[in-house]
Amino acid sequence: MTTTAEAHDSIRAVQWQGGHLRLLDQRLLPGEERWVDCRDAAQVTEAIRDLAVRGAPAIGIAAAWGVAMAAQQGMALEPVLATLRAARPTAVNLMWALDRMKRRLAAGADADALLREAQAIQDEDLAANRRMGELGAGLIAPGSGVLTHCNTGSLATAGYGTALGVIRAGVAAGRIARVYAGETRPWQQGARLTMWELVRDGIPAQLIADSAAAHLMRSGAVQWVVVGADRIAANGDVANKIGTYQLAIAAKYHGVKFMVVAPSSTVDMATGSGEEIEIELRDPAELLGTAGRRTVVEGAQAWNPVFDVTPAELIDAIVTERGVIERPNGMAMQAMFGR
Amino acid sequence: MTTTAEAHDSIRAVQWQGGHLRLLDQRLLPGEERWVDCRDAAQVTEAIRDLAVRGAPAIGIAAAWGVAMAAQQGMALEPVLATLRAARPTAVNLMWALDRMKRRLAAGADADALLREAQAIQDEDLAANRRMGELGAGLIAPGSGVLTHCNTGSLATAGYGTALGVIRAGVAAGRIARVYAGETRPWQQGARLTMWELVRDGIPAQLIADSAAAHLMRSGAVQWVVVGADRIAANGDVANKIGTYQLAIAAKYHGVKFMVVAPSSTVDMATGSGEEIEIELRDPAELLGTAGRRTVVEGAQAWNPVFDVTPAELIDAIVTERGVIERPNGMAMQAMFGR
Repeated sequence: MTTTAEAHDSIRAVQWQGGHLRLLDQRLLPGEERWVDCRDAAQVTEAIRDLAVRGAPAIGIAAAWGVAMAAQQGMALEPVLATLRAARPTAVNLMWALDRMKRRLAAGADADALLREAQAIQDEDLAANRRMGELGAGLIAPGSGVLTHCNTGSLATAGYGTALGVIRAGVAAGRIARVYAGETRPWQQGARLTMWELVRDGIPAQLIADSAAAHLMRSGAVQWVVVGADRIAANGDVANKIGTYQLAIAAKYHGVKFMVVAPSSTVDMATGSGEEIEIELRDPAELLGTAGRRTVVEGAQAWNPVFDVTPAELIDAIVTERGVIERPNGMAMQAMFGR
Repeated sequence: MTTTAEAHDSIRAVQWQGGHLRLLDQRLLPGEERWVDCRDAAQVTEAIRDLAVRGAPAIGIAAAWGVAMAAQQGMALEPVLATLRAARPTAVNLMWALDRMKRRLAAGADADALLREAQAIQDEDLAANRRMGELGAGLIAPGSGVLTHCNTGSLATAGYGTALGVIRAGVAAGRIARVYAGETRPWQQGARLTMWELVRDGIPAQLIADSAAAHLMRSGAVQWVVVGADRIAANGDVANKIGTYQLAIAAKYHGVKFMVVAPSSTVDMATGSGEEIEIELRDPAELLGTAGRRTVVEGAQAWNPVFDVTPAELIDAIVTERGVIERPNGMAMQAMFGR
């Protein structure tokens, strides 16, 4: 049933179509594969804010294309950069990609050079994912079970994936024998997107309720939790999808190892620790209904933080394309990512 | 906005109507308040198995009425007892109520005496809940925040509730200042049922994703996690709704206290530890779709345990109507519940 990852990593959710940007609408999967065409930077901003495109690396890539498109259309780029930057607050890849475009602009790049820069950001992300897949899979003992959270696959990146890239590589190498994915409330990225990618790849996997993770760990079925990141602070603290922190605590309690997989563009050495990271709070409506239908009594309130911070002390390994940091701390982070 | 609990604990989800049993269908709340009429024991069994009635105490009470109804109808009671017992495996209150009816039967009780026994089981549950409310609230320092899981209120019991009874009492006494409820995937009993009860009571509360609990604890907003139980073993291990164990681990990590509230009918001294408790696995379809609509890609698999076991070492207090056991262990359990 398993197969090589190479044969199946072909989903490209963010596509430059020579003049406009096509995005696979992640709100509708797996029920419908509908593409969204963004013909100006405002539409790209809207797609990021409204989650048509999500996943820290993917929103960075989409934003870079948004800037390149605006340049092609002869628009003033400063407001475009500012609007895109404000689309979502937690994932630093968005700021990183925009800063990179801005630096090229400041260096006198023309519209075509900005297009090439966006393409480079996308290409480098895919290459980083493949490298991280090798590095991360190398940490996993043959025959292991892994649990992942949210979606960190081709849909969340330029392709292949971060944590899901490690799973693809680990399955292909025979190191990973069992894959579990948490649903990831409230948007169900695990249920809707990760399971979709795994089934497409022919990788046998079990979906679990987010709250079943500790019970799963107690059963002995998983040896690693493998997740992505939206921002990694200078001390090794990691902001990621809500629920990641809870998994890290449960993993520590059970002696299950905890791996964070993210490109170096996710590392934010200007943020000292997780406490400084702004956590996005989204509309309570995301918890109070589903598919436009109210499921919770009228008058009810909800608290809907969509990220949390996992302290470095709960993390066994941070994997980037530059290498692996085991038991991360500020000194190790500085050695790999400092200037 | 808060009010006395007395004014609002009037939901009676399990009602004997002098000849048949009426159940408030908990699968349809809060969208619809539809009552299910059970006119024979087979219909009661079906209602328990299919979750029209749920909550450990409530299914025990419903089963007792099922036996009494069968006796009124002149049916052979042994097969009725066996069928009801097999309806759900984890909650021991079901076995406890059936054993109690069986003992009365063995002692020569006639149909009317069995009706009175079912009524006594129901009345005693309500009284136990009020007593537990007082005892549990007494453990909570004024101004505290609490997090609860699943639904343990009037809907899950004869009325008032176990953990939710403690919350009702604690709010009425001014001890509880903030209430949070986890959604409780996959059936959303917290989102659908607990929020419904809290809004009816005028108790301000926030719904959270199950996976946001640790992030909430880190914020300092909650001092206690308060949950019910489906079975309490002789060593103080507690089986309860999936996700309870994960909350207990996160609570320990944050120094948040953990309280289990359940009537003594939930205590099973014949079960030595949690390892001996059968955990109900339900249909993966409960995770793969919602409201009859498939939300996860075809071909995906799921693992759907609906209970887990929290070891006694993670529990600060077990509250029953007989009293409070702090830091439960086998000796303390034996002293309170042994013969």
